[in-house]
Amino acid sequence: MALIDGETASGLPLDDRGLAYGDGVFETVRVHHGQCVWWREHLQRLRQSAIRLGIEAPADVHWDDDVERLLGHPAAAQASIIKLILTRGGGGRGYRPDRAARARRIALRLPPPDGAAINSAGIVLRWCRTRLARQPALAGIKHLNRLEQVLARAEWDDPAVFEGLMLDTDGKVICATAANLFAVVAGRLLTPALDSCGVAGVCRAWLLAQVAVEQCALSPEAVLAADEVFVCSSVRGILPVVALGDQRWPIGPVTRSLMKQLADAHPVFAGRAA
Amino acid sequence: MALIDGETASGLPLDDRGLAYGDGVFETVRVHHGQCVWWREHLQRLRQSAIRLGIEAPADVHWDDDVERLLGHPAAAQASIIKLILTRGGGGRGYRPDRAARARRIALRLPPPDGAAINSAGIVLRWCRTRLARQPALAGIKHLNRLEQVLARAEWDDPAVFEGLMLDTDGKVICATAANLFAVVAGRLLTPALDSCGVAGVCRAWLLAQVAVEQCALSPEAVLAADEVFVCSSVRGILPVVALGDQRWPIGPVTRSLMKQLADAHPVFAGRAA
Repeated sequence: MALIDGETASGLPLDDRGLAYGDGVFETVRVHHGQCVWWREHLQRLRQSAIRLGIEAPADVHWDDDVERLLGHPAAAQASIIKLILTRGGGGRGYRPDRAARARRIALRLPPPDGAAINSAGIVLRWCRTRLARQPALAGIKHLNRLEQVLARAEWDDPAVFEGLMLDTDGKVICATAANLFAVVAGRLLTPALDSCGVAGVCRAWLLAQVAVEQCALSPEAVLAADEVFVCSSVRGILPVVALGDQRWPIGPVTRSLMKQLADAHPVFAGRAA
Repeated sequence: MALIDGETASGLPLDDRGLAYGDGVFETVRVHHGQCVWWREHLQRLRQSAIRLGIEAPADVHWDDDVERLLGHPAAAQASIIKLILTRGGGGRGYRPDRAARARRIALRLPPPDGAAINSAGIVLRWCRTRLARQPALAGIKHLNRLEQVLARAEWDDPAVFEGLMLDTDGKVICATAANLFAVVAGRLLTPALDSCGVAGVCRAWLLAQVAVEQCALSPEAVLAADEVFVCSSVRGILPVVALGDQRWPIGPVTRSLMKQLADAHPVFAGRAA
């Protein structure tokens, strides 16, 4: 089921700038027992992303209404994903936006994430060849220009490998294709700074608000030498990393503690660690 | 009027990866007296772009059929623009493409370019603040991830300024927001190399096949010190640049000669120079 500007819809107008140029932003929201997890945080990030691109975001109440309708069906209420897309709307001449055009609000209900693929004993990572370009103007934003992530995720089919780490074009580690990265190094919790590329995730922001985290430049060697490594996303929570290339890790105490803290705050993420 | 996979359509399925991730490529084709200008060249670039992204392009005959239908209406036959979009289609799990999914073919008829805005005495350029990120994996391709161009084109509203020049994040001049750049320096015809960013345009390729052109790194200072400057696109042909910041140029002999050569080969571009 899908809504465009609050109306049931099956198709996007073909002049939409979201299709033409990836001119918009999106959010992917986990639903648990009929409730959107980190709902206000997702709407806040969507609004902030839209401001960065000069797109006028609708009032939160419109998204609230959309989600109420999408989750109103009993079959949908238990577990699913809500995807929100905000595009700059239609029109304009070429790249030039039409100042009078109204942003277009799209809300979709998708199936829940494939939980069977997550090993409760942790996940296996690989290194991606596709690099992230350094573009401060778009860094941190969850915008619709995601070809780099698509190319990176297309690099492997092995179902045993859950995620791939991406470096930027300077060789620094930035993130997984669809998750943020954390590493414990000599007792310090580190995560890559996202001032040049990467998406500033909602679960990442939650972690930054809970515990002391240093945002810094991370080399591949530093990640491999870390005592603990995990990735996180607002859809899957914290996923401990147990293997990357030839490196192996047990699930460490910092990761376990943060997983427990997250599960206490958001029960949807309980019961993942072995 | 619009076609999706050869069928009249008004809307794009909302799970299309073109919308979700800008996961596709496009072409914008000038129509003159009912004929597509550089049609085979556009289809060739589309196919090459699709190969770079791992998208399977349809046989040219399908695009031929689409265009025949779109231009079959008498009102459309004279002058217009045909826009082709090829997306990776629907589905997949997140960024991961569905190997079984078929690419989606979209063909649209749009109004002709706004000719009144082009001063026959040449155009005025500005410098854009928005930079192009350096990403060799996507350089040269006319893909659907175009937020940089959108942000750059949104920087000005002054109708007297026709185009804006974009630098990459290293400070080299790459292109205008929707056109390629050429400069005559000490008798040599130069154009920026596009191995790190920028779109390799169809009119640019035509010029490279006609005359000796050096593809090189160009600084803003080199452009300002050039004897002649012009931009080109397959929709508008060659547009002489007469002003950029405080710099002024007459329309020079190399530009005039190339404009005549282009007009002889493609009459749609005749009669532009003063």
